[in-house]
Amino acid sequence: MAAAAILPELATQVVIPVAAAVGIAFAVLQWVLVSKVRLSPERRGEGGAGAGKSGPSDYLIEEEEGLNDHNIVATCAEIQNAISEGATSFLLTEYKYVGLFMSIFAILIFLFLGSVEGFSTKSQPCHYSKDKTCKPALANAIFSTIAFVLGAVTSLVSGFLGMKIATYANARTTLEARKGVGKAFITAFRSGAVMGFLLAASGLLVLYIAINLFGIYYGDDWEGLFEAITGYGLGGSSMALFGRVGGGIYTKAADVGADLVGKVERNIPEDDPRNPAVIADNVGDNVGDIAGMGSDLFGSYAESSCAALVVASISSFGINHEFTPMVYPLLVSSVGIIACLITTLFATDFFEIKAVSEIEPALKKQLIISTAVMTVGIALISWLGLPYTFTIFNFGVQKTVQSWQLFLCVSVGLWAGLIIGFVTEYYTSNAYSPVQDVADSCRTGAATNVIFGLALGYKSVIIPIFAIAFSIFLSFSLAAMYGVAVAALGMLSTIATGLAIDAYGPISDNAGGIAEMAGMSHRIRERTDALDAAGNTTAAIGKGFAIGSAALVSLALFGAFVSRAAISTVDVLTPKVFIGLIVGAMLPYWFSAMTMKSVGSAALKMVEEVRRQFNTIPGLMEGTTKPDYATCVKISTDASIKEMIPPGALVMLTPLIVGILFGVETLSGVLAGALVSGVQIAISASNTGGAWDNAKKYIEAGASEHARTLGPKGSDPHKAAVIGDTIGDPLKDTSGPSLNILIKLMAVESLVFAPFFAAHGGILFKLF
Amino acid sequence: MAAAAILPELATQVVIPVAAAVGIAFAVLQWVLVSKVRLSPERRGEGGAGAGKSGPSDYLIEEEEGLNDHNIVATCAEIQNAISEGATSFLLTEYKYVGLFMSIFAILIFLFLGSVEGFSTKSQPCHYSKDKTCKPALANAIFSTIAFVLGAVTSLVSGFLGMKIATYANARTTLEARKGVGKAFITAFRSGAVMGFLLAASGLLVLYIAINLFGIYYGDDWEGLFEAITGYGLGGSSMALFGRVGGGIYTKAADVGADLVGKVERNIPEDDPRNPAVIADNVGDNVGDIAGMGSDLFGSYAESSCAALVVASISSFGINHEFTPMVYPLLVSSVGIIACLITTLFATDFFEIKAVSEIEPALKKQLIISTAVMTVGIALISWLGLPYTFTIFNFGVQKTVQSWQLFLCVSVGLWAGLIIGFVTEYYTSNAYSPVQDVADSCRTGAATNVIFGLALGYKSVIIPIFAIAFSIFLSFSLAAMYGVAVAALGMLSTIATGLAIDAYGPISDNAGGIAEMAGMSHRIRERTDALDAAGNTTAAIGKGFAIGSAALVSLALFGAFVSRAAISTVDVLTPKVFIGLIVGAMLPYWFSAMTMKSVGSAALKMVEEVRRQFNTIPGLMEGTTKPDYATCVKISTDASIKEMIPPGALVMLTPLIVGILFGVETLSGVLAGALVSGVQIAISASNTGGAWDNAKKYIEAGASEHARTLGPKGSDPHKAAVIGDTIGDPLKDTSGPSLNILIKLMAVESLVFAPFFAAHGGILFKLF
Repeated sequence: MAAAAILPELATQVVIPVAAAVGIAFAVLQWVLVSKVRLSPERRGEGGAGAGKSGPSDYLIEEEEGLNDHNIVATCAEIQNAISEGATSFLLTEYKYVGLFMSIFAILIFLFLGSVEGFSTKSQPCHYSKDKTCKPALANAIFSTIAFVLGAVTSLVSGFLGMKIATYANARTTLEARKGVGKAFITAFRSGAVMGFLLAASGLLVLYIAINLFGIYYGDDWEGLFEAITGYGLGGSSMALFGRVGGGIYTKAADVGADLVGKVERNIPEDDPRNPAVIADNVGDNVGDIAGMGSDLFGSYAESSCAALVVASISSFGINHEFTPMVYPLLVSSVGIIACLITTLFATDFFEIKAVSEIEPALKKQLIISTAVMTVGIALISWLGLPYTFTIFNFGVQKTVQSWQLFLCVSVGLWAGLIIGFVTEYYTSNAYSPVQDVADSCRTGAATNVIFGLALGYKSVIIPIFAIAFSIFLSFSLAAMYGVAVAALGMLSTIATGLAIDAYGPISDNAGGIAEMAGMSHRIRERTDALDAAGNTTAAIGKGFAIGSAALVSLALFGAFVSRAAISTVDVLTPKVFIGLIVGAMLPYWFSAMTMKSVGSAALKMVEEVRRQFNTIPGLMEGTTKPDYATCVKISTDASIKEMIPPGALVMLTPLIVGILFGVETLSGVLAGALVSGVQIAISASNTGGAWDNAKKYIEAGASEHARTLGPKGSDPHKAAVIGDTIGDPLKDTSGPSLNILIKLMAVESLVFAPFFAAHGGILFKLF
Repeated sequence: MAAAAILPELATQVVIPVAAAVGIAFAVLQWVLVSKVRLSPERRGEGGAGAGKSGPSDYLIEEEEGLNDHNIVATCAEIQNAISEGATSFLLTEYKYVGLFMSIFAILIFLFLGSVEGFSTKSQPCHYSKDKTCKPALANAIFSTIAFVLGAVTSLVSGFLGMKIATYANARTTLEARKGVGKAFITAFRSGAVMGFLLAASGLLVLYIAINLFGIYYGDDWEGLFEAITGYGLGGSSMALFGRVGGGIYTKAADVGADLVGKVERNIPEDDPRNPAVIADNVGDNVGDIAGMGSDLFGSYAESSCAALVVASISSFGINHEFTPMVYPLLVSSVGIIACLITTLFATDFFEIKAVSEIEPALKKQLIISTAVMTVGIALISWLGLPYTFTIFNFGVQKTVQSWQLFLCVSVGLWAGLIIGFVTEYYTSNAYSPVQDVADSCRTGAATNVIFGLALGYKSVIIPIFAIAFSIFLSFSLAAMYGVAVAALGMLSTIATGLAIDAYGPISDNAGGIAEMAGMSHRIRERTDALDAAGNTTAAIGKGFAIGSAALVSLALFGAFVSRAAISTVDVLTPKVFIGLIVGAMLPYWFSAMTMKSVGSAALKMVEEVRRQFNTIPGLMEGTTKPDYATCVKISTDASIKEMIPPGALVMLTPLIVGILFGVETLSGVLAGALVSGVQIAISASNTGGAWDNAKKYIEAGASEHARTLGPKGSDPHKAAVIGDTIGDPLKDTSGPSLNILIKLMAVESLVFAPFFAAHGGILFKLF
């Protein structure tokens, strides 16, 4: 029979918070290193020395330039301030509206869950072990609501801090770019690492603390405890949804609007300070790509942990109250932080970037190293943290599993993530033929560019889906829904590195923008462009991870929901389930239609305003007058606040409406349909967008014979490429990445409300 | 207990062939009327009188013009000949390659199905009633193969005849356009009706004859008889797949290629005779939109009949050998032919088109009238052809159903079709705000046009999916899979009218092309353009029907497959099924990637050739030299023949590979996934494409104040609209409409091979 885990409970209680603390300390260290780059001109020299400590200066093959121009530093600081203020002000406005929505939703959670047993304060028989006594439904209502708020606040803080760090780092990256691409890379990457480690560690820490605090009340009722904890995932994801959608609309309205007038009509470069929408565009990168992405991945992490914990609580770990294996998901994340820490040193200290061509390989190496190190870590923690044999709850029966099988589950998720990352890179980096083919198709105009780009996105779905399917099959077969949940966790275990790479992209993008706006030389801009091109690819990779993990997470949550709603099978061949399936598969389209239309309409308004300013402000085009940045910021803000509500409501209300009116079987169908359909659109949308963006950059950079036949900037093929890039913007940064939240959120919400639906749902079918 | 149907068997044996004969006779009559428009100049006057008999000539408010120009008639005849020859030659080439593929597949069917019982000639216990004796598996193998070939040949002949009729009618429509839009409309519509009635009637007749002939051998073994008949559906759909994909690539390679150089680079009008790709473009309309669509809808019709019949054969009708209710699906189709006949008279004889604005309403009326008349017909035939109470096979149990419930099933399908039609019209006609918004977004360039167009397509999915879901829920709840099958049949019962409307579009398109090439006046071109714009909308409506019915058909086939493969449930929460579901949902993307890339590559080749001719043939641009049309025709032919094989193989081989390697559970998942995902992409792709096309036409026509602010031809918004139109071409005419064949074909193929998979499938799981 089951022996105990090697790691005693006390050690576990130490390991988790310590790992979290190490992560936070490492983040602070990185921040200190970044902050050595001074933004106050008089002390600039000192900063240069500080940031240069990672390698002897004779390694730098690029000459330093503009180091003595104090004006430039001041301008950079000023622009950074404007961006930071714009982003802060938008996020605060956004949080105000979302806060209202979340408060209402929190009340709904309390009321709905409390009503399950009529707000009774009496204890009741447990759901899964009827012979035991569990805490009342009212307790579940209260603690789920608290967990929900906790998740939402953690997500909010994660996104906000990420934005703060990014806007702190962007100008510093620009200034370092004067000294060479290597310096700039390290500054951008370190800043990304600050965000990655802070987020991974604080997510873990808050969850750990919540479990221990809730445990004081729940005592032996682990089933109830971890059911209530699922509210944490719901809170995290709800916040992420609004962050992604609101931020996505903001950034793309500004970006599309700025490009359409600036690049296409007025023929001025990207990020030109004469463009009135330029500040809004740069603000957008921070609120959309940084804050949105941070909230999103935090949500995935919280949900996969919650899904694993809730299944574990009704497996032998929970039933026998074995603490160490019970919190195995948290142990995996703890090891992940350490693995990522080691990985980061390879980028910042062990090697140094000396040329533009080394950037992408360096980032790719991060993925490989973190996966390899983490595999060892998983083996170790599976050996230490799990008993050799145990049982896992599998839709009503207990399935016997061995610790090495769980190691396989986590690892298959981790490696599937790597494969998805590489495939994404192949399809979105301009170093390979797919993007080059798309660029080549610009020769015959925008139409063929779009046709080839869409085809590329569709094609890029194939291998990731096979990778996801294989992980699901293996982990599902070995350890049922628990296996799927830990596979998701495996994919997210290197989240700190993933986020570092991800955040690096928008920071570089902003750095380029600041260089342009500060009137820095063409050479500096070339360096930041190279950083940015690599950033586009890593952003696509990050989205690939986010989507892949979302697919696994939602399946695990879906499984947990089905268990909790006491459905025995989800048979496609019953009318109730099938209509759910087909309607569920439609939801991602509905959602995408809303978000894309929002971006389009907001961009139109932006275009009108930018045109108005160019036409009515004298001297704007000549650069003698400053444009009115604030109006453009306001247009983006207003549009995104207004437009994020309908798609947000669609996602948040669908499970409630379906569950209440049609019941849990139809809801199961909806979840499965949305999952299998949404994951495809999400992958194809983000890869298509990434490919168009890099096809444009490929032509602009003109680094090969082939690329030069398509260029230069302003040529007909380049114009066609710009159109593709603009179309890709809402696909890759608004609708695509929001879709993974859609599928996760509906699943976790169904799980949280499952007791209510099981008790009071399906009134339409009850009536007829 | 169950009483017999009112209609005796003998009467049924008379009604069905008579209805088919009436349909064929009506088609011949329409053809005779069309043929009265003479293409030989000297007898032109006579033709005008013949075609004008549908209404007194003083109704015509438009003046006649160019009637006496004999040269024009000769030119039209010449162009028509070139188009007809090109189309014939392509189809014959296509059939040669497809014939080879189909022969191999026929052998596979025979070998696989024969091997189920080791090619034994001994009779065996029946699959569903183990106490009875059924014909050997070898008989099933032989007759399924014969039915397959029969289906393929019928589909081939349907497509070929459709093409012949269309190329016979196009120049005649052009000539009639000289006399007014009403005359031209009637000619185009009558020609469409020839195709519609011929196809509906011959599909019914061949099926009826096959049942009676096969019945001679099978005798009392109806289960075996109707299982073998399913091969008919498989043959029809396989042929349709290649027709759609091959024809789709052909037409869009030519269209995109012609537009990119002609309209965009050289600034010459569409269908200008100087454009070397112009003949290929017009040939494409006939082989893609006409032959492909004909084969496609024939396939849907054959499959829904087969799905209903195979379920009926194991229900009380089949078990008790009640012939009349057994062939209820054929009776519904028979009534459908009569209902459509009455409907057609409303367009050709009872009313007359007097102005451009009346075209769309007239076509819309066709939909409404046919639906209303057919509802009465269904009520009648359900009362006459069905016993009041009977039982239907429902996954292992018999479910009691009453005849009025079956009436509801057929009707809900019929009316859902109408709703889908109207929604499609709303989203693709330029009379409503969605397309006008898309046109308006061209103001800011091609990028916003594409963003708005994609969003429109996504949004247009919502209501059709609800309509499909509702029909499925109702028919499924009332009469299990039989209900779904007859609902599909209900949607297709007005197929003759549907096809007439559908074929009308490409005929008008060609008529416009011929007018342009023959150098006819601007006024004539305006009339054919108006016919064509209405045709775009009806084409989108036709695609909506095709997709909606495909969704219902494949679900019914899927249900029949599950019954035959003896699976008890298709539980999403088993790893085998879930991986099938997610991979199945990916297949439409894979398939679309292939077909879109094919169109893109073929178009690039076409562009090069067209550019080459413009650059190297002196006097081409001035119109003094003729271009080399044949080379362009050859490029389209070669590309489509070469490129149709991989997507075709993907669809045809997937069920075989999955069934053999992974078994029937995973295959069930694949079918469900492909169905729920494919239907969404198909609808959105065809509506997006239709909307872009009509947005462009909206700007070109300049019929409103708003439209005129966007035009005229050649303005920047118009150029942006042309780009959207070009992108939409492969979406709406290649990948989109092929997807409904993908979902149907995989389902029917699984059904045909079900005995083989059940006996020998899933070897991968057996090995491990």
